[in-house]
Amino acid sequence: MRLPYLSIDTEKVEANIKKMVSKAVQNSLDFRPHFKTHQSKQIGQLYKEQGVKGITVSSVYMADYFSSHGWKDITIAFPASVSFAPLYNKLLQNCSLTLLLTDSEVAKKLDSKLNSPVSVYIEIDPGYGRSGLAFDDFDAIKELKSTLESCKNLTFEGFYTHCGHTYKCRSKDAVKSLIEPIFASLGNLKQTFGGKICFGDTPSCSILEHFDGIDQISPGNFAFYDWMQYHIGSCNPEEIAVTMHCEVVAKYEQRNEVLIHGGAVHFSKDFILNNDNEPIYGVLVDDCQSNSPSYIKSLSQEHGIVSCSKSTIELISVGDVLEFYPIHSCLTANLMREYVTKTGEVISQFGSGAPYQLY
Amino acid sequence: MRLPYLSIDTEKVEANIKKMVSKAVQNSLDFRPHFKTHQSKQIGQLYKEQGVKGITVSSVYMADYFSSHGWKDITIAFPASVSFAPLYNKLLQNCSLTLLLTDSEVAKKLDSKLNSPVSVYIEIDPGYGRSGLAFDDFDAIKELKSTLESCKNLTFEGFYTHCGHTYKCRSKDAVKSLIEPIFASLGNLKQTFGGKICFGDTPSCSILEHFDGIDQISPGNFAFYDWMQYHIGSCNPEEIAVTMHCEVVAKYEQRNEVLIHGGAVHFSKDFILNNDNEPIYGVLVDDCQSNSPSYIKSLSQEHGIVSCSKSTIELISVGDVLEFYPIHSCLTANLMREYVTKTGEVISQFGSGAPYQLY
Repeated sequence: MRLPYLSIDTEKVEANIKKMVSKAVQNSLDFRPHFKTHQSKQIGQLYKEQGVKGITVSSVYMADYFSSHGWKDITIAFPASVSFAPLYNKLLQNCSLTLLLTDSEVAKKLDSKLNSPVSVYIEIDPGYGRSGLAFDDFDAIKELKSTLESCKNLTFEGFYTHCGHTYKCRSKDAVKSLIEPIFASLGNLKQTFGGKICFGDTPSCSILEHFDGIDQISPGNFAFYDWMQYHIGSCNPEEIAVTMHCEVVAKYEQRNEVLIHGGAVHFSKDFILNNDNEPIYGVLVDDCQSNSPSYIKSLSQEHGIVSCSKSTIELISVGDVLEFYPIHSCLTANLMREYVTKTGEVISQFGSGAPYQLY
Repeated sequence: MRLPYLSIDTEKVEANIKKMVSKAVQNSLDFRPHFKTHQSKQIGQLYKEQGVKGITVSSVYMADYFSSHGWKDITIAFPASVSFAPLYNKLLQNCSLTLLLTDSEVAKKLDSKLNSPVSVYIEIDPGYGRSGLAFDDFDAIKELKSTLESCKNLTFEGFYTHCGHTYKCRSKDAVKSLIEPIFASLGNLKQTFGGKICFGDTPSCSILEHFDGIDQISPGNFAFYDWMQYHIGSCNPEEIAVTMHCEVVAKYEQRNEVLIHGGAVHFSKDFILNNDNEPIYGVLVDDCQSNSPSYIKSLSQEHGIVSCSKSTIELISVGDVLEFYPIHSCLTANLMREYVTKTGEVISQFGSGAPYQLY
C-alpha cells in the first residue's frame, strides 16, 4: 500500500449511518445527509442501502458528480449563484434540486435563467456569522419570501440553518445550551412564515435527543467523525471510521519526538488546541486514551512531528507505520482523495479542489 | 472558467526564477530549485529554459513524476526510507538520485537493497527542530559518515539543511540575524567533515546577498511567493505570481463582510496572524497596500468570509469575482491542482495527496 494512506472502516461508517437514520426515524425527521465529508460514490452506496434518497452537497460540481452516480434529489447547501444557472439547468434534466438563497436580487435574476422548477431554502444565520439572513430580520425574510412567491421557477420550501458554532463547544451540555434558544427562534420563524426547517451540524445531530420543530437534518461528518468531534463530545474514539497511516522516518529520543511522512498535504492544517493552548494536528490511535496521548504537534508540506510520551516512544522504531485519528476528517479525506478498506480495496472520491470538467 | 480558480502569471514566475538564477551565479552556487511548490511539468519547463538541470522534490512519488517528464538529476529532500528501496531502484534506471539520511541503521539496510549508486546528504537540523542531526552532534555525524563510506551504493555528498524557522521571522534583519550563526556552524561542519553544503529556504535565499561556505541552494516557494513571504520580507506583493479568484455569493454590510466561494479545500487552512493576533487566510489584491487591507478572516470547507474596509465593501457586488493573494502558495497550489494562465491556458500538476500509481 502506498504510504501515507487513509484507511476506512466501512463497518463503522455503516454503524454511524444506522445510528443517525434511527435518530431521524425516532424524531420523524427527513434525513438528507451531507456528502461533502466523504465525496465518494461508493460510500454514498452505504447510505442508499439504508434507505437514504435525498442528499446534501456543498457545490454544484459535487452535485453533478453525485447526480451522475444515480442521486436524484440533491440540496446544494451553499448560496446559489446566477453564474451557475447553466449548470443548474444541466443538472435539472436528471434530478431535483434544492438551492439556498439569501438575496432577492439573486433570486429574480436566477429565476429568469432557469428552465425548470427548483425548491429554495432561505438560509438563516443562527448566530454563527457565516452565511444567511439573521433569524430576527423579519423584513428581509418577508421580502425574500414574497420575491420567491412571485417567481416562475423558484419555490419557497422553508429555511436552512447551519450551526457551525457548535464546533467551538467542548461538552455535550455546551452544545445543548447553544442550540436550545436557536430551536426556539427557528420555531418562531416557522410559525410566522411556514415552510420546513432544515438543520444539521454533526455535533448537534449527534448530541441532541430531541429536535422540536425541526423537519429535516443534514449532518455530514458523523459518518466518519474525527478527533475534533470527540473533543466536542459528538462521538467516542471507537466510532471514528477513518485513520491516517504514516511511516516513521526518524526518531528523536532527546526531545521525545518522531518524524513521520505525513504533512499538511495529507492531514490538512486544521487543528484543535490542547490544554496548554498548543495546536494538535492528529492523535496517535495506540495511546489516545492514556493520560498523555501522543499527538502531531506540527506539520509542514510532507513532514509531521509527533510528540510522544516516554513510554510510547520506547515502542516505536524507524520504519514503523503509525495510525492517527485526523483532527478534521472532511479536510483530510478531501486531500487524500481515496480510502483503503480493511480488505485492501481502494475507494475513490470526487475531490473538491480538483479539476472537474462540467462544461 | 470554473470558479474558484488559481491564476498564474508566468511572466512573474520567469522573473522570479531569473532573479534567483542570477543570485546563484553571482555567488557561484549550484541551483537545485525545490519543485514541491508548483508540482507541474509545464512550470518545470520554465526552469529548464533558464538552464536548470538538477531539482529537489519532497517525495519519491514526486521524483517519479518529474523523472517521467525528463528530469535526470533529482534530490529527494525527505529522510530516505528502506521501504522505498524498490522505488528508488526503479527511478535509478532513468535518473541520478540524491537522498537524505540521518540514521546509520537505515543507511546500512538501504544500501543492501539498492542496485545502483546514490548520492547522500546527511541532513542537519539548524535549530528548526524538525528533521536532521544537530550540527554540533559530531559523534553521530561521524558515525553516519563512516557508515556511508563503508557502503557499496551510498556515497557521502555533504550536508543538507532547511532553516524552516525563518518563516517565523517578520523582517529581513531578523532573517539575517537568524542565519548568520547557522552559516558559521555549517562552515565548521564542512571544515571538519568535508562535502558540500546544501541550504535553501525561500526567505533566506530571497533576503541574503552572500552565502559564505554554501555550495548549493534549493528554495521552492520563491517561484510563486505568497502573502506570508511578503510578511517575512522575502518579496513585494507585485512579485506574487499566483492568485485565487473567487465569486462573491453574499454581502453583509452590517458587519463589513462578504461571503465568497473559496474555502479550506481551495486555500488550505494555513494562516498568518494580524496585529490583533487574528488569523488571515488570504488578502484581497485590490486594496492590499491600503491602510486597512481586506482579508479572509475565516474558512470552512467551501465558504470564505472576507473582512472589508468600509470603502472597499461599497465597491463590491454579489456576483463579482475577487482576486486574493494566498497565504501559502505551496498548499493552495497543491489543493487547486491546476493553474490558469493569463491567456486562459490550463496548466496541470501532480498533486501530492492524490492517488498516484507508482507500483
